[in-house]
Amino acid sequence: MGKRFRNDYCELAHPFILKALMEHSSEQNEAYGLDVHSRKAAQYIKDAFGAPSAEVFFLAGGTQTNLLLISKALRHFEGVISADTGHINVHETAAVEGSGYKIITIPNINGKITAKQVEEKVASFNDDEHMVRPRMVYISNSTELGTIYTESELAEICGVCKKLNLYFFIDGARLGSALTSSENDLKPSALGKLCDAFYVGGTKNGLLFGEALVINNPELAKDFRRHIKNKGAMLAKGYAVGIQFEAAFENGLYFELAKKANVMADLIKKGFKEFGIDILPSPTNQIFATFEKESALLYIKTFGCELWEDHGEKLTIRFVTSFLTEEPDVNELLEFASSHRK
Amino acid sequence: MGKRFRNDYCELAHPFILKALMEHSSEQNEAYGLDVHSRKAAQYIKDAFGAPSAEVFFLAGGTQTNLLLISKALRHFEGVISADTGHINVHETAAVEGSGYKIITIPNINGKITAKQVEEKVASFNDDEHMVRPRMVYISNSTELGTIYTESELAEICGVCKKLNLYFFIDGARLGSALTSSENDLKPSALGKLCDAFYVGGTKNGLLFGEALVINNPELAKDFRRHIKNKGAMLAKGYAVGIQFEAAFENGLYFELAKKANVMADLIKKGFKEFGIDILPSPTNQIFATFEKESALLYIKTFGCELWEDHGEKLTIRFVTSFLTEEPDVNELLEFASSHRK
Amino acid sequence: MGKRFRNDYCELAHPFILKALMEHSSEQNEAYGLDVHSRKAAQYIKDAFGAPSAEVFFLAGGTQTNLLLISKALRHFEGVISADTGHINVHETAAVEGSGYKIITIPNINGKITAKQVEEKVASFNDDEHMVRPRMVYISNSTELGTIYTESELAEICGVCKKLNLYFFIDGARLGSALTSSENDLKPSALGKLCDAFYVGGTKNGLLFGEALVINNPELAKDFRRHIKNKGAMLAKGYAVGIQFEAAFENGLYFELAKKANVMADLIKKGFKEFGIDILPSPTNQIFATFEKESALLYIKTFGCELWEDHGEKLTIRFVTSFLTEEPDVNELLEFASSHRK
Amino acid sequence: MGKRFRNDYCELAHPFILKALMEHSSEQNEAYGLDVHSRKAAQYIKDAFGAPSAEVFFLAGGTQTNLLLISKALRHFEGVISADTGHINVHETAAVEGSGYKIITIPNINGKITAKQVEEKVASFNDDEHMVRPRMVYISNSTELGTIYTESELAEICGVCKKLNLYFFIDGARLGSALTSSENDLKPSALGKLCDAFYVGGTKNGLLFGEALVINNPELAKDFRRHIKNKGAMLAKGYAVGIQFEAAFENGLYFELAKKANVMADLIKKGFKEFGIDILPSPTNQIFATFEKESALLYIKTFGCELWEDHGEKLTIRFVTSFLTEEPDVNELLEFASSHRK
Repeated sequence: MGKRFRNDYCELAHPFILKALMEHSSEQNEAYGLDVHSRKAAQYIKDAFGAPSAEVFFLAGGTQTNLLLISKALRHFEGVISADTGHINVHETAAVEGSGYKIITIPNINGKITAKQVEEKVASFNDDEHMVRPRMVYISNSTELGTIYTESELAEICGVCKKLNLYFFIDGARLGSALTSSENDLKPSALGKLCDAFYVGGTKNGLLFGEALVINNPELAKDFRRHIKNKGAMLAKGYAVGIQFEAAFENGLYFELAKKANVMADLIKKGFKEFGIDILPSPTNQIFATFEKESALLYIKTFGCELWEDHGEKLTIRFVTSFLTEEPDVNELLEFASSHRK
Repeated sequence: MGKRFRNDYCELAHPFILKALMEHSSEQNEAYGLDVHSRKAAQYIKDAFGAPSAEVFFLAGGTQTNLLLISKALRHFEGVISADTGHINVHETAAVEGSGYKIITIPNINGKITAKQVEEKVASFNDDEHMVRPRMVYISNSTELGTIYTESELAEICGVCKKLNLYFFIDGARLGSALTSSENDLKPSALGKLCDAFYVGGTKNGLLFGEALVINNPELAKDFRRHIKNKGAMLAKGYAVGIQFEAAFENGLYFELAKKANVMADLIKKGFKEFGIDILPSPTNQIFATFEKESALLYIKTFGCELWEDHGEKLTIRFVTSFLTEEPDVNELLEFASSHRK
Repeated sequence: MGKRFRNDYCELAHPFILKALMEHSSEQNEAYGLDVHSRKAAQYIKDAFGAPSAEVFFLAGGTQTNLLLISKALRHFEGVISADTGHINVHETAAVEGSGYKIITIPNINGKITAKQVEEKVASFNDDEHMVRPRMVYISNSTELGTIYTESELAEICGVCKKLNLYFFIDGARLGSALTSSENDLKPSALGKLCDAFYVGGTKNGLLFGEALVINNPELAKDFRRHIKNKGAMLAKGYAVGIQFEAAFENGLYFELAKKANVMADLIKKGFKEFGIDILPSPTNQIFATFEKESALLYIKTFGCELWEDHGEKLTIRFVTSFLTEEPDVNELLEFASSHRK
Repeated sequence: MGKRFRNDYCELAHPFILKALMEHSSEQNEAYGLDVHSRKAAQYIKDAFGAPSAEVFFLAGGTQTNLLLISKALRHFEGVISADTGHINVHETAAVEGSGYKIITIPNINGKITAKQVEEKVASFNDDEHMVRPRMVYISNSTELGTIYTESELAEICGVCKKLNLYFFIDGARLGSALTSSENDLKPSALGKLCDAFYVGGTKNGLLFGEALVINNPELAKDFRRHIKNKGAMLAKGYAVGIQFEAAFENGLYFELAKKANVMADLIKKGFKEFGIDILPSPTNQIFATFEKESALLYIKTFGCELWEDHGEKLTIRFVTSFLTEEPDVNELLEFASSHRK
């Protein structure tokens, strides 16, 4: 059976990451993330993202990270604005509402939202005390549709947030894929300035597990460790994540892995286009392609793709490349595509 | 500097565990714990603990596991009974109350509580609707004081719980150390019968991270995966924990590691007794010893012990052995003790 | 200044209600709703709504009642379906999400939703465990737009709920206005059968305060008193509400008051139509009329109307009649309308 | 049957309160507590309690008021210190924990706690991030045992709170009874200075229902109206409470009613002492008397007393006088006591 393109978290970890864990396997470390590896990793990340005075917290997963940041920032009478396609709105089994916070949705434009949409949405609430108060904007970059934000788009949202007293939080579960996209113009160092908090996803980019939450706004960082523990999210062996992020950021491995997945995805997109396959615009490692139903089901069966949207006669399905996708995998897929053209 | 005896989660993982991760590093697995490793690990655990019809869920840490089980079982007008020294009551930054559940405390007897205490406590509530309703008993085994429950003690608590319509939940962060203690008479296979749920701690017994929550009561297991996700605790790479527990239970490694820590602790206790050092009764890998203040501070500095209780002139401090503690480490400590006698 | 038409809760209470309170002012009653008045009132309500085996709970307000019923019925990974215009979605400062439950919205059709919409919405979730699980349908009758459900519409929603394992809850803040509308065909006695729970609003129909929550489904009624207390909603002097509902239902006063407000509203609507004023379809005591902006502002100023929707050139504003609205009030309004025609 | 001494909320309301409601029954008021009566009542209360810059919020009941203030002030990793006998700890069906906040208990001394106890308790936490952080002190005055705090005791607790960065909140469900006790030395005007918030109980002192929460600390008052609505506690007819408090504070009625209940209680205590009945020290309207079991049960049956503590052979039971207790009621009780002496 050919290699699957189901998602970017079906393979355990990049060998370099596991090697780093092996190297430190018998040393003794401070528990709860107070160890030297976590400190080093935090420093690398602050350097990489232009956030010298930020605080970095290592957490186990993406939904947890979203839940923790949002529940730290908001009161229960406040809400978070998100694209209707936002991960928090669709794919987290109501973790945000389950913790007590309303999500205010805006219709997405290819997975994205604009500063103007945010401004209009907030205006519609008219500061009415019987309505929830919009208090945060949540976006993901790259988005759930594989699209990315330009630096100026982020700067505009940032500007509206400052004007309207909204926190700005960027879900970076696939931040690597955004920043290494061939279409990206966002400088990593801008992230330390443009938002109150963002996270650098490890799980979907070659780590065994772990996300690095970077909080630029000291008001949100205050007491955050207690908040983590209170939500059951503090890892005793925090250094297990620290070691991984140290390895990922010491020499740029993090960006290499993301870049590689993007390059592989670009090859697939190029091939698909040549075969006349209809694909959505996505400059990152997620590819949304539309086929006749029968074909689509064959792809799903052969490559483990997820069904994305059912149009009746046709289906849109998702292919995802990962840090372990290799050219032969891509070629196999393209040969399949070539021989199943219709 | 000598090896520290601070706790049993300062070392990353046993080499066998890391080896297992390496071996599966490039294979593709189903995400979210639906993989073959997690299934195998679950089966090993159900076999080991006499729980053929239980459901097993792999989670990242102990506080999270406690929080998840308790919040699944109780309504907000119900409470959980615990020893006042219980981990949930003392050392989890109010994670249980933070999720909305009152802890009803009982004075501990060497870290333990009795069936009789539970019965009296419940009676004191008199089923008054203006008071919280006791609905669960939580114990840890081994306890926070290193003590263990006999099988008959557990059976008695189990009996009271059935009689009074209480769930019975056993925190097994250090279950291995309890079951391999030289004083233990509890059959692992009894755990599948005596309680509604228990967990098998990995973090404190040689795993990189991870706890296996075993739910015997199908009412509590219902919809548990949605509950996990809703609390932000579902790991995308669930197989990262599955692989570890598979390795730990395939050939009894889990019990070997715990046994070893206990044996090392027994050597220390024997030595301490010979030197006339005052220690609390604990048949597992935690040793609580009392010294003159000056001595105690020296131990803390040299071996990383935690201060347990301040008696003024004297301090009780805690030594913990781990799966990586070796005889030379013990000898070093005992030599130190020998040369610092007073 | 003329009488205001701002809403139906600007006047304290109908004289009969206050008289009943006076009559019982010095007698001693059981606290917490266990008194004889509350029992009698509950029986009257069960009789009136064909719910002989229901349980009735008296609460202080509508948002509280919605919050209590929903938080009793759902788990945090479950959600409640509502029209986007639903009171819980728009006008309760995120009380439902603040308690931990996602609201799943459906586009309203004149304030209403259909069984078919519900069925399609639920299907779109595909029982995916990473998404919230729809578990309840919430509607209001009369709706936030003054419209009402026919008995067959409710029966259809009820059928879909049974089929899809959804609870069905009807917000009756203005139930009286629905049931006494000239267009109504819903028998009060159907409410005891068609839904799991509904409430009979007192605050908006002549009571000092208070809502009667009727729970038909015994699973939801179980432990409800403890739930009320736990949410801070149990009134020590529960009989204060019981006495009012006893007075309201002993001789049909409840329906008389609602009917009167409807009749007054019908007069206004008739007059507005004669003057060519554009009004939305609403067969109850809320009237939504659209005027040139300048006119609208004059009405708002003179009659205390709420701005409902801003169309730019024109504004839609709301007039509400109450149990104390009298014909002279209506005439005054219509004279004003007559003299401000354009 | 003789008049019952069960509690102070078994009678609806004082005639003056109901009269005030009647007088305003047909006027139109702003909803949601923004009316002129609520404003006036707030001003009277601020004047009475020396709190010119406080904000006053009218709520429906005591548990709700406690829940609202505490949930506004604390984060979930913070806890509230209370006497073990505190109402929030014992008699609110876990409303505070149900909302997500741990209660840290201190052994009561006749229902009270001291500044020294608070200081020692806080020190025991050692600012450990794995433990809950004490962040508030809650007391009730008069206490659940009918005792009262002196002004200097409150000033000491206030001082410790300021020193240790704790909020200080006083539950005044029976504040009237404390302030009008013959043993009281606390000036009402001190309450505006000595604490961050307190409430003035109406339900237990002659109002139909309602409590006035006075927030001295602007940080806690911020956004409090949204918080009220979010918790389902905002009354549409807020003026229903405003009118009552206006009547209660316009001419000192509030204190008169409390005083009267105290005077009646003093008569009972005097009589009991003469008869050699053993009573606990309580200078307010609650009387805790201990009788042989048989006698106690007779009192319970005849006067509706609550059983307070079961000592085996003897029982302690509670008598409560109210704003409607009259001398003949007292005489009847004392005659009964006289004829049942043993």
